[in-house]
Amino acid sequence: MITTHPIRFVSLGPGEPDLITLKGLKALQGADCIFCPATMTQDGKSSSRALSILNTLGFSDTVQCFRLPMDKDRTLALRSYEAVYESSKILRAEGQNVVIVAEGDAGLYSSIHYIYDKLQQDDIPVEQIAGIPAFIASGAMAGLHIVSQEERLIVIPGHVTAKELDDYLKHQTVVVIMKLSQCIDEVHQCIINHPEYQYHYFENVGTEKEYYSCSTEELREKRYPYFSVMIIRFG
Amino acid sequence: MITTHPIRFVSLGPGEPDLITLKGLKALQGADCIFCPATMTQDGKSSSRALSILNTLGFSDTVQCFRLPMDKDRTLALRSYEAVYESSKILRAEGQNVVIVAEGDAGLYSSIHYIYDKLQQDDIPVEQIAGIPAFIASGAMAGLHIVSQEERLIVIPGHVTAKELDDYLKHQTVVVIMKLSQCIDEVHQCIINHPEYQYHYFENVGTEKEYYSCSTEELREKRYPYFSVMIIRFG
Repeated sequence: MITTHPIRFVSLGPGEPDLITLKGLKALQGADCIFCPATMTQDGKSSSRALSILNTLGFSDTVQCFRLPMDKDRTLALRSYEAVYESSKILRAEGQNVVIVAEGDAGLYSSIHYIYDKLQQDDIPVEQIAGIPAFIASGAMAGLHIVSQEERLIVIPGHVTAKELDDYLKHQTVVVIMKLSQCIDEVHQCIINHPEYQYHYFENVGTEKEYYSCSTEELREKRYPYFSVMIIRFG
Repeated sequence: MITTHPIRFVSLGPGEPDLITLKGLKALQGADCIFCPATMTQDGKSSSRALSILNTLGFSDTVQCFRLPMDKDRTLALRSYEAVYESSKILRAEGQNVVIVAEGDAGLYSSIHYIYDKLQQDDIPVEQIAGIPAFIASGAMAGLHIVSQEERLIVIPGHVTAKELDDYLKHQTVVVIMKLSQCIDEVHQCIINHPEYQYHYFENVGTEKEYYSCSTEELREKRYPYFSVMIIRFG
């Protein structure tokens, strides 16, 4: 008889290999096959923070990368997810212990959940293992009490108006913005209107390229890249 | 010469011992003294999820509990934090490797940050190690894609009106509520007005007493305890 395992979705955290959970690490250690996403840039190169985390943790032979194009049109990405879905189903039926990894947390803005949902629709046992979101690692890196007591916290994935930022902060809501490149002007405006707020800016937390700044003079003119995080506090 | 270490604030995650990060575990393994908060209930008993996590991970000899009264008046709690602050300073000056632990993430609604801030004001090196927030572990337990693509996420620590809930959800903002006992009527109202939304309710995720329900029939009448989490999605 073949032993069947649930297909496990292991969250790797945002970049620092040691920020994986013990539970996630044990799942990787038990895996026969680890599917790992790699981003394909337009010049045909492939880059994967998830792969670099896995390699540093000592996993390479069991790792199988799949490529995701960086493209607004999600057709090719979905095709790639479909292929992983099919392969993982087949491997599991053969008795293999299959893991699929995600950067950050697999439940927070992670398109890999598409595979999870498809497997679940087929009544295949799946398990999701929590990971550290990038903004939590960012706050820890800067030693922040991100949010306390009665304060609220809003997480915004890029698109936001200066008026909305104003309203959140006026009502004691701490703001976390990801994909900052999508709202550069709005954030600059917020810094100019409210230099009294605290702005904490992060790139590549937990990696060699880690960068942190809380200088409003710098941040009100900076061109933020896509993968960056800002935490704004009202006082 | 005495080696001095930074005083490390290690986040333990919400309850399941294996949800600690590898980085947090290594910090605990290197510690000479681990300060651990225990809640003192009004009948004089003491309970600590942090302690039970530490014990399961194999730490006991190096653990020193300090008691925090469950009381709206924070005077006694602050006195307790002051004592830990003083002790950790002295131990560090003697060359000991000191760790202070927190449930969940030390930067997210964690009053232990009071000690961190005081040490930092004294120019004592401190380090904060990220942990899994309770709502992230809850989402993983239920296999949720908590938030995706352009959606926003608001985290509310208890107090909220039914109108505010309405507004967030109407504008594609996923709602996470903690300390649900503080807004039972408002949440019941939201369920009655919007039975079409998805309500995910959690208690004690990752512990023996774990409880999950997404039944609106049950949840619209339930008396939620203080330590419970709800995730509401609009569709």
